[in-house]
Amino acid sequence: MRDFLPEDIRRRQHVIGAIESVYRRYGFEPLETPAVENIGTLLGKYGEEGNQLIFKILKRGEHEASGQADLALRYDLTVPLARVVAEHRARLPRFFKRYQIQPVWRADRPARGRFREFYQCDVDVVGSTSPLVEAEVCGAAAEALQTLGFAEFTVRINDRRLLAGLLDVAGVPGTLHGDALVALDKLDKIGREGVGREFASRDIPPAAGERVLDFFTGIAGLAEVHRDDPGRHNAEVIARLGALVTGHGPATHGLTGLADILALSGATAAAGRLRVDPSLARGLSYYTGAIMEIAVPDLAGSLGGGGRYDNLVGMFLGHDVPAVGFSLGLERIIVVMGERGMFPASLAGAGADVMVTLWNAASAAGALSLARDLRAAGLRVDVYPEADKLGRQFKYAASVGVPLVAVMGEDEAAAGTVTVKDLRTGEQVTLARAEVAGYARQRLGG
Amino acid sequence: MRDFLPEDIRRRQHVIGAIESVYRRYGFEPLETPAVENIGTLLGKYGEEGNQLIFKILKRGEHEASGQADLALRYDLTVPLARVVAEHRARLPRFFKRYQIQPVWRADRPARGRFREFYQCDVDVVGSTSPLVEAEVCGAAAEALQTLGFAEFTVRINDRRLLAGLLDVAGVPGTLHGDALVALDKLDKIGREGVGREFASRDIPPAAGERVLDFFTGIAGLAEVHRDDPGRHNAEVIARLGALVTGHGPATHGLTGLADILALSGATAAAGRLRVDPSLARGLSYYTGAIMEIAVPDLAGSLGGGGRYDNLVGMFLGHDVPAVGFSLGLERIIVVMGERGMFPASLAGAGADVMVTLWNAASAAGALSLARDLRAAGLRVDVYPEADKLGRQFKYAASVGVPLVAVMGEDEAAAGTVTVKDLRTGEQVTLARAEVAGYARQRLGG
Repeated sequence: MRDFLPEDIRRRQHVIGAIESVYRRYGFEPLETPAVENIGTLLGKYGEEGNQLIFKILKRGEHEASGQADLALRYDLTVPLARVVAEHRARLPRFFKRYQIQPVWRADRPARGRFREFYQCDVDVVGSTSPLVEAEVCGAAAEALQTLGFAEFTVRINDRRLLAGLLDVAGVPGTLHGDALVALDKLDKIGREGVGREFASRDIPPAAGERVLDFFTGIAGLAEVHRDDPGRHNAEVIARLGALVTGHGPATHGLTGLADILALSGATAAAGRLRVDPSLARGLSYYTGAIMEIAVPDLAGSLGGGGRYDNLVGMFLGHDVPAVGFSLGLERIIVVMGERGMFPASLAGAGADVMVTLWNAASAAGALSLARDLRAAGLRVDVYPEADKLGRQFKYAASVGVPLVAVMGEDEAAAGTVTVKDLRTGEQVTLARAEVAGYARQRLGG
Repeated sequence: MRDFLPEDIRRRQHVIGAIESVYRRYGFEPLETPAVENIGTLLGKYGEEGNQLIFKILKRGEHEASGQADLALRYDLTVPLARVVAEHRARLPRFFKRYQIQPVWRADRPARGRFREFYQCDVDVVGSTSPLVEAEVCGAAAEALQTLGFAEFTVRINDRRLLAGLLDVAGVPGTLHGDALVALDKLDKIGREGVGREFASRDIPPAAGERVLDFFTGIAGLAEVHRDDPGRHNAEVIARLGALVTGHGPATHGLTGLADILALSGATAAAGRLRVDPSLARGLSYYTGAIMEIAVPDLAGSLGGGGRYDNLVGMFLGHDVPAVGFSLGLERIIVVMGERGMFPASLAGAGADVMVTLWNAASAAGALSLARDLRAAGLRVDVYPEADKLGRQFKYAASVGVPLVAVMGEDEAAAGTVTVKDLRTGEQVTLARAEVAGYARQRLGG
């Protein structure tokens, strides 16, 4: 976990501001939930590995010595949203569209661009099974990334029902689907033979494993061929999938849903960016339909992802409420933007526009009063706190990057004037006190 | 701990935005620290009661069963700041001015306006012993409250060295100072006799206790007399204190510091608001000099407080670095502003300006495309996600408070037009599609 010093925060605020403004234009409203949830709310929602990575909080008071935990730190923003929807159903509209930008905590081993405390930026739409909802969240996430300056990225898309159908028709027993997906997820890294060995070690029937691998290596080849024509690629993948899962009810539903989302996305900011990828699995166990993930060229891992989870609210409410979400990973976005020089230069500024120097202890009230006037004019003003040699005060101002220094020495105090020096150019003028704010604003604007 | 639904967040953002903008104009820069600190960083910094109220996090992995805690949730923003200063000293300017607006957690019994997760809004200046620093943080906090609409409040001010000196000269042994202050803190509630009984039960020598009570009840009477003339009140209290602590070195220093802060504050936004209150003690154990607390008429408790803590950074760094801070309590400010009707009516709006209806499933792409154009024009736009009866869609828009509804039915689609209805007035017009954004902006502006 990390501290964020002023320049870090300015970068974060730049990214959060851009994302927030896009999400608002899509009609999403802000929601915040507590960092701490009852432990029962989180356990069992993220799969076995997720349970291990939850930070657990000791009971307080006389129970502390028992070593038992009753609370836990938020692990993502989706499960708390599902709890909120169940808890506040009567106060929320039928279609609840919320965005939430808050930290989550995972007891993971930290790695580059990966931390134990990190921010997620989520949008979710609760209450509809329409594929328009998937199209909207993909559009919102794509527009947020475009606004930040990401020009080239694709949205990989798949469907959990389709994935299960593929494994079913290939002959992988339902109980081994999870194992098969964990192995398939490494196809990129360890190749067909590697995955084949993993299948064998996980007791996947050899013939079923071969059928699965035939299909997925075929699709991977196709992706290479159609690199520059995602529309044609999607159409051909959907055709192949359709041929494979004919007669498998849930998989056919998943496939129709994918086709609908693709068609609708043509009218959104995600137009041309969606790429059907039957190997996409996503780690979290709560997804039930479409799943999506952002891929950026030359970047391992993803900037975000999401999907449909129609059963999660039901775990809290007793009856299901459909929902779709998309989550952007703020930390990875910031790391990539930093590495690729995507932040505006203006973010690297000082914390103040003007520093007022201190002539001597007796002039401190005068310095504060000048600062007050300049602040009232909207300037960011620092007052050097101690009566020090003027040269040292100027040196300090330069070291922290403050552009303008205001001096009210004995002469100036007597004449009701202020001397302002622009440290960037060395220019220096003496002005009537009432003119200082206007002059400073003009110099800073130029 | 609470969830914050959209209207709650708008109120929070209003308050945070106002406070942040004031703090920036004072030259404070943003800092954020992790929610979780090493447990050793927090223990022993807040006094015995504070230790009890810290949320502790279980060790992970194979240590989980041990019931031991190695991490803990942030208890305030001051101790993490001291750790940051010690850790990042080389990267920070000599005078480090930071603001920090983040949640803290205390395992307290919840009460009205008091929660286990709550936000603090802190400003601190690290690096100077000058009383100008106290004047600046009081000015910043006062201006933040004024900006939010608080017209009447005072800043109670005292000094820890002075308080200790008072007890010394009255004859209270140093080891019993803490007990004496806990009892004195209740003078308002349980009166002179009540405090006298508490003194006795805590083994304060009777004669010393009487001297202390004589002084404090005298001051309390004085506060009544000078209710409308804080300047005269301060002068007289300082004179009485001066007579009492003559020859007591630290107390005399404390008193001189108070007089300096009072004089300098005349030139700040806190002018006329400071009131010397020798009974002010503040709970936290790390204060070493001036201490301050905001008092609002007809409000039990405080909206914030602060003080000088010159030894805290030294606990992490090995040598002392002087510091002064002021913390505003966001939750209490929001509760009071809500009760007193201080929020602008504009905060109670809908999440979208325009809702685009859905004629039928085939028209969904057209609806998304219209939404995209309107969003590009800066409007907040919702798309009804399902092909539903138009009447139900209008009813839904009205129920969530969206002012404008856009309809692209078959006629409109054929003619390239859009019908826009203003639900507030019932007015309805049919426009060329390119004119919709301009029309909507005009209606919303009016």
